[in-house]
Amino acid sequence: MQTVQPDDLVLLVDRDRKSFIVRLEPGSQLHTHRGVLNHDDLIGTPWGTRVYTHLGHPLWLLRPSTDDLVRDLRRISQIVYPKDAGYILMKMRIAPGCRVVEAGTGSGGLTLVFAQAVSPTGRVYSYEVRPDMQQLAHRNLEQLGLTEFVEFKLRDIAGGFDERDADALFLDLPTPWDYLAQAHEALVNGGFFGCILPTTNQVSRLIGALEETNFGLIEVEELLLRPYKAVPARLRPIDRMVAHTGYLIFARALIPSEE
Amino acid sequence: MQTVQPDDLVLLVDRDRKSFIVRLEPGSQLHTHRGVLNHDDLIGTPWGTRVYTHLGHPLWLLRPSTDDLVRDLRRISQIVYPKDAGYILMKMRIAPGCRVVEAGTGSGGLTLVFAQAVSPTGRVYSYEVRPDMQQLAHRNLEQLGLTEFVEFKLRDIAGGFDERDADALFLDLPTPWDYLAQAHEALVNGGFFGCILPTTNQVSRLIGALEETNFGLIEVEELLLRPYKAVPARLRPIDRMVAHTGYLIFARALIPSEE
Amino acid sequence: MQTVQPDDLVLLVDRDRKSFIVRLEPGSQLHTHRGVLNHDDLIGTPWGTRVYTHLGHPLWLLRPSTDDLVRDLRRISQIVYPKDAGYILMKMRIAPGCRVVEAGTGSGGLTLVFAQAVSPTGRVYSYEVRPDMQQLAHRNLEQLGLTEFVEFKLRDIAGGFDERDADALFLDLPTPWDYLAQAHEALVNGGFFGCILPTTNQVSRLIGALEETNFGLIEVEELLLRPYKAVPARLRPIDRMVAHTGYLIFARALIPSEE
Amino acid sequence: MQTVQPDDLVLLVDRDRKSFIVRLEPGSQLHTHRGVLNHDDLIGTPWGTRVYTHLGHPLWLLRPSTDDLVRDLRRISQIVYPKDAGYILMKMRIAPGCRVVEAGTGSGGLTLVFAQAVSPTGRVYSYEVRPDMQQLAHRNLEQLGLTEFVEFKLRDIAGGFDERDADALFLDLPTPWDYLAQAHEALVNGGFFGCILPTTNQVSRLIGALEETNFGLIEVEELLLRPYKAVPARLRPIDRMVAHTGYLIFARALIPSEE
Repeated sequence: MQTVQPDDLVLLVDRDRKSFIVRLEPGSQLHTHRGVLNHDDLIGTPWGTRVYTHLGHPLWLLRPSTDDLVRDLRRISQIVYPKDAGYILMKMRIAPGCRVVEAGTGSGGLTLVFAQAVSPTGRVYSYEVRPDMQQLAHRNLEQLGLTEFVEFKLRDIAGGFDERDADALFLDLPTPWDYLAQAHEALVNGGFFGCILPTTNQVSRLIGALEETNFGLIEVEELLLRPYKAVPARLRPIDRMVAHTGYLIFARALIPSEE
Repeated sequence: MQTVQPDDLVLLVDRDRKSFIVRLEPGSQLHTHRGVLNHDDLIGTPWGTRVYTHLGHPLWLLRPSTDDLVRDLRRISQIVYPKDAGYILMKMRIAPGCRVVEAGTGSGGLTLVFAQAVSPTGRVYSYEVRPDMQQLAHRNLEQLGLTEFVEFKLRDIAGGFDERDADALFLDLPTPWDYLAQAHEALVNGGFFGCILPTTNQVSRLIGALEETNFGLIEVEELLLRPYKAVPARLRPIDRMVAHTGYLIFARALIPSEE
Repeated sequence: MQTVQPDDLVLLVDRDRKSFIVRLEPGSQLHTHRGVLNHDDLIGTPWGTRVYTHLGHPLWLLRPSTDDLVRDLRRISQIVYPKDAGYILMKMRIAPGCRVVEAGTGSGGLTLVFAQAVSPTGRVYSYEVRPDMQQLAHRNLEQLGLTEFVEFKLRDIAGGFDERDADALFLDLPTPWDYLAQAHEALVNGGFFGCILPTTNQVSRLIGALEETNFGLIEVEELLLRPYKAVPARLRPIDRMVAHTGYLIFARALIPSEE
Repeated sequence: MQTVQPDDLVLLVDRDRKSFIVRLEPGSQLHTHRGVLNHDDLIGTPWGTRVYTHLGHPLWLLRPSTDDLVRDLRRISQIVYPKDAGYILMKMRIAPGCRVVEAGTGSGGLTLVFAQAVSPTGRVYSYEVRPDMQQLAHRNLEQLGLTEFVEFKLRDIAGGFDERDADALFLDLPTPWDYLAQAHEALVNGGFFGCILPTTNQVSRLIGALEETNFGLIEVEELLLRPYKAVPARLRPIDRMVAHTGYLIFARALIPSEE
């Protein structure tokens, strides 16, 4: 039976589904509203068991999912939700070995998903202009042991990206139409372009600009995630749900014919 | 500028967004309703350019996305859609290096996504009872060069899985409640369980059975994908959409307390 | 220009879209968190103008919509939302002159919509077992001047309905399958049956029972209402929405063939 | 037991849910792909029973719902769906006795719903510029016996509406922003304004124009209708659904303060 080891990243979930993610360090303590847990008491405990705070409150001891990691991220900006991030992987073929460019880094939610997906041989090049953002994202990914797959760049992308022949490039910023020439230049010919935007006005403007910058096969989609109450005899959607995270825009970097 | 090479997998997309995926073999031909293309004429052509059939019809020459690959799959069964597959990766932390068990293989759509996501160091163990299904899935993954990451098993899972300590296990079959003890045995303690089911009756039955088989933190969700017409001045959802693919059920394999 | 008169029902809406509905009585006052309004100051004021509390806070003076009335209703039970109520009118042809049976009355939300729709020549027969519920519903409809179109009955419907040849019959209660014979008896041959239920388990059970009780042309549907932020340059769905109110079930009371 | 009479409007539904709506005339025949029915054979038959074509195919004999009527309408333009029409009644308080202005008439789908809802004492004023449209709508409503509640006007609304103090005004045309001053003039102070538009660009433009024309309390919403397969043991959404009919925009005609 596999047990928890020092330096492991653990997810602790209480009865109300409130959860905590921590990296275990001998001698440390986790303080929750339900009481305290000594990391030393967790080390050596089998995964999947129930542990107790000093007040006797039970918590499940588990490995976090990618969804858990993204939702738990410390953030100072809107993050890309896992439902969208997973779909982006599918639409942009982000897989082990890929070289992916991203701007802006934000709190690092998408950076995390990309870094994990391209590891161990690929690489994420992540651009950000705000130093505080970048520092937070760096700390977030360091906590997850993913920094070796990411090159963080503190830079305005108006001057262009350093990379060439990138497999995929994703823009999560308010005015993506300003950077399409730069994006096209950084992408391999035929490469995958992606973007997420909150308003319909931005979507209209972006797809107009994409058409004028040698991008093609443009797609606009949105994903709605509807959670259910998991009660066998009373199965039903929960009362309220997230109604909007963003519109996803995908396109391919094309090479215009000479004619 | 990167050019297409022999043995490359290419996506060809015509003006109406109809697409074809082929692996290039010197001397071969692709026959479409718009005319014929010689593989030899494509080899050496830059990615992202337009090529023409013998009737003069243009097609974009591109690398396929994972979404393209799944949608293009030859199938004799319902496939798991990319919107669901991408989210499954997020919820079950399926990433490079993971050992993932799956049953049934079906046409191999999810097998493809899992194999790509766990490569190069992980492995997918995929169970199926129907020989014709398994053969089709095997051929589908061979076409994509992904068989080295998959162990195909032609076997009824009622007798249990061969694996132990699997990171994640996914069931895509009509009566998952019949195999929960076997699933729990194959999973690492605390491991990720997932399932997709079309009807609410099946969902109710499965979550009832999960509760009785030491699975916990059960979640039921569904994803709706809404595509838009990507016209800058007339942005709007398309008229009709897929209304239902399946309910996603996630849970964790727990170890009951002794008390 | 039409002005507000004594005994008019008015909707007052503040800057944050918080709203109040009151019937104007000379000498009365409306107390809001933004200050006080004298009914006498409102009487004689044109509809559609801005009025001010004694603290100077502006409120729009308007006639309430049916949607406003339903949302404002004092309630001790879940109400049927206007999105569902409006669709029920369409599916059950509830229009001026119809005779409609309803159980249970609840807080009277659907009763209100039905009463308004069948007036002035039709009638609603509304059954309820809980006296407190019925009193609340009665008071709610009295406030709106709609009681003349409703016959309230404090009675368990297990013993059957008093009506025969009703045009439409709607059940808003947890175990509708217990009352289908009674419903069939009260409906005109071919009449419209409707029901709203929160869980999938209830829907399955009801449609099974309907099939066995000479109901046919069964339909199950749900309506999702998605509100947008009405900002011209930043149009987008609001962040969160109601994810579930209930499943709507419609059927027709059929007469079995003799054969 | 109520029986079908000459001049009754009947709905006939076959086993595959294909339906026909006809007004019964002694001596007439209904020709379907399943065979012929003599109106004379239907007259005197109880509602809710099964009748048979000369080829022996069964059809249920029923009164049509408003939903049935709208869906069956002969049309040369897009109609407003019943899900939207029912909600419009709720949001604009369209009820017996109301005076409602509408433009354009189109095929008369919404005219039908409004006429039925305001009868017997209210009235619909419906404007249209295309004579063929208006004729079709007139014929459609005549078939349903609703013309006495509608005043059809063949006229460009750029010159204004004839009505004043209308309770509600609905625009179903491509450039509603061109007619807002006219709409405001026709509405009672505080009156209900509504509109349906297919694209986000139109919505942005309309709400911008509404803000500049003394309309307020603007709301933008959309309704998604999701039908289910009504099978008790295999309850599930149907595979495909209508993804978009239109965005609904509601507002109130306000009187600006003097200040």
